[in-house]
Amino acid sequence: MVGMDPEFRLDTQLCFALYTASRKVTSAYREPLKAIGLTYPQYLVMLVLWEQDHRSVRQLGETLALDSGTLSP
Amino acid sequence: MVGMDPEFRLDTQLCFALYTASRKVTSAYREPLKAIGLTYPQYLVMLVLWEQDHRSVRQLGETLALDSGTLSP
Repeated sequence: MVGMDPEFRLDTQLCFALYTASRKVTSAYREPLKAIGLTYPQYLVMLVLWEQDHRSVRQLGETLALDSGTLSP
Repeated sequence: MVGMDPEFRLDTQLCFALYTASRKVTSAYREPLKAIGLTYPQYLVMLVLWEQDHRSVRQLGETLALDSGTLSP
């Protein structure tokens, strides 16, 4: 488009590259996890508890950088 | 934890590194975008339409790798 700063092209946006890469990788986990009844964030919680059990929801949130809404039991 | 394969440690999971990086970067956009009334996916759509106007929802979805649920008007 005439006058558009190339800096704003979608393919130059780091945020979009990360967003797309993360979505594609996470989506590859969807079907295998569905088979064992887990969502992707639930899978992350399982990994954390496997490493070290008996963590509080707050500690889980800190480790996973998830907010309490995502983590509510 | 005794017996846990190091391969499954959270900090060796590429998917988790991507997931966290993407969430943190996207969250940095939240407040500035909120000030202009856009969510992050809406911002991406604006960038695409700025580059090339008059695209269908299907084309937008393909460009952004978003599903139609995320893009419904």
